[in-house]
Amino acid sequence: MRQVVMHGPGDVRVEDREDPKIIEPTDAVIRLTATCICGSDLWPYRGAEPVDHQVMGHEYVGVVEQVGTEVHTVKVGDFVVGSFWASDNTCEICQAGYQAYCTHRVLMGTLGTQSELARIPLADGTLVATPGIPEPDLIPSLMAASDVLGTGWFAAVAAEVGPGKTVAVVGDGAVGLLGILAAKQLGAERIIAFSRHTDRQALAREFGATDIIGERGDAGVAKVRDLTDGLGAHSVIEAVGTQEAMMQAIRSTRPGGHVGFVGVSHGVSIPGDELFMAGVHIHGGPAPVRRFLPDLIDRIWTRKINPGKVFDLTLPLEQAAQGYQAMDRRTATKVLLTL
Amino acid sequence: MRQVVMHGPGDVRVEDREDPKIIEPTDAVIRLTATCICGSDLWPYRGAEPVDHQVMGHEYVGVVEQVGTEVHTVKVGDFVVGSFWASDNTCEICQAGYQAYCTHRVLMGTLGTQSELARIPLADGTLVATPGIPEPDLIPSLMAASDVLGTGWFAAVAAEVGPGKTVAVVGDGAVGLLGILAAKQLGAERIIAFSRHTDRQALAREFGATDIIGERGDAGVAKVRDLTDGLGAHSVIEAVGTQEAMMQAIRSTRPGGHVGFVGVSHGVSIPGDELFMAGVHIHGGPAPVRRFLPDLIDRIWTRKINPGKVFDLTLPLEQAAQGYQAMDRRTATKVLLTL
Repeated sequence: MRQVVMHGPGDVRVEDREDPKIIEPTDAVIRLTATCICGSDLWPYRGAEPVDHQVMGHEYVGVVEQVGTEVHTVKVGDFVVGSFWASDNTCEICQAGYQAYCTHRVLMGTLGTQSELARIPLADGTLVATPGIPEPDLIPSLMAASDVLGTGWFAAVAAEVGPGKTVAVVGDGAVGLLGILAAKQLGAERIIAFSRHTDRQALAREFGATDIIGERGDAGVAKVRDLTDGLGAHSVIEAVGTQEAMMQAIRSTRPGGHVGFVGVSHGVSIPGDELFMAGVHIHGGPAPVRRFLPDLIDRIWTRKINPGKVFDLTLPLEQAAQGYQAMDRRTATKVLLTL
Repeated sequence: MRQVVMHGPGDVRVEDREDPKIIEPTDAVIRLTATCICGSDLWPYRGAEPVDHQVMGHEYVGVVEQVGTEVHTVKVGDFVVGSFWASDNTCEICQAGYQAYCTHRVLMGTLGTQSELARIPLADGTLVATPGIPEPDLIPSLMAASDVLGTGWFAAVAAEVGPGKTVAVVGDGAVGLLGILAAKQLGAERIIAFSRHTDRQALAREFGATDIIGERGDAGVAKVRDLTDGLGAHSVIEAVGTQEAMMQAIRSTRPGGHVGFVGVSHGVSIPGDELFMAGVHIHGGPAPVRRFLPDLIDRIWTRKINPGKVFDLTLPLEQAAQGYQAMDRRTATKVLLTL
């Protein structure tokens, strides 16, 4: 099969690799319909994380091609969506809704899903079948559910978004934009997006943003306070992962409010004295996307939401290198790879 | 009147000062029955915070002696309990239960309550009257409600303690011990106390601790994991304020679990990448004690709880200096000052 391999920073190739096989009786092998490039794939691409001939990708939708003898909830021919952690969905941590921390979890990125085929461990717990084979125009949205939508949704839930709440969103990448969509779906009254990019501002508004703030850092915080009687937002989503973004999120939140953070932390250090005086709640980390998948698939299937709009570049898998380059140069927000 | 003044680090004196008067129509003046010395009073005492002829104290119970013209919920002769932030209890932040961040808040420590009389701003919002004049043996427990009990209770609530939960408590000072009492009252199934002191271990067990761990830091964390099938506690209370204690709390918590932190942060810095991967909730800060006061007073009045047991030294106000010295040298956990 063909598979994306990152030989080193900036060096992405599509190569022939051996087809994956069932190893454990709980495995499935799927034939991918689509996959995509994640913002987190840019860290090694840019040399900010070590990489050496690494298979890439952890987002996937496709059709089940083989199942192990102990797989019961999906069958050959099912169209399925999964997320970046394979999880049994039965352990105590999964049952509490934290499948990203399943006691048997397997990180899909170590197997790679920017490929024609992929082995999915713990298939019963990991994969969710759609009601049928989806119309082609639903593929991008189902693809989004695999990671960026699920992550934005988790951020909104972690930030305790709900009816009557004012929500602020730090980060206008795919996850931030889908955090806006999630906030709208979860009933937020007012959604403030931090964004400086005209095209992203437009999508932010389409997804539900009511206010756009161009300023960043403390100037951005001051604007949020202006919009909220000086109090700050009830719920703030942090979808960047830098020190500035995290502090902007904490400082934009009112006392007793909630920060949901899903930007993969790079060099962030939270001062304890400021957190103490802020009186906010903080929760985040790798999203337990599996918790939300059945609900998200239903909203997509019934065309209540169209998260696939975050994909602004679609390329065949063979042109993955071009996709990485586009995201690195910010000429694309999120790249869909088709097979 | 007589009042405690800290002239400089280690230099505590009781002096004659002018009696406080009603300034705002929302003020009350109370005659203190008791006050106490807080662990946080030791920071300036030890030179870790600046201090220069500062009036001291922010915990108080007493009898209302005068009220302003706009005070309606307490009257002269009422026995009252208040907390370390005066709050209007009507603003949006107070109504959300975060009275320590009231938009009109006044820090009682700036007025001082280690004194015979004290002016209480925003008396209607701040003070809660007891059902009558308390029996003398209830005074220490009502005194505890003013800060250490309310703070330990908030920590337990912030850590989402509840039935069926396993709770770990970092810190065996008055607040940590009362966090144990709170966890027990809130229905925790198992309460693990970190403590190395025999006398505090005994009180921890009396308040509801089911397990005691003598180890600290990562060795302590390993013990918690041993006791929880490797998962960590559902809820962890941090009641110290140091880097070691905060990391011990975060690492003792299972993914999706909750850390409630109330130790006043000194030099703490939380690494974002570790917090991201931990997947815990963190919430804390100065406790909104006012939120809990009516409930806490009821539990004390009906003798369901006896939090006054944390006071292991009682002195007249005139001997305040001796009380500071005892807490500084750790010969006392918590000192009650009587008038």
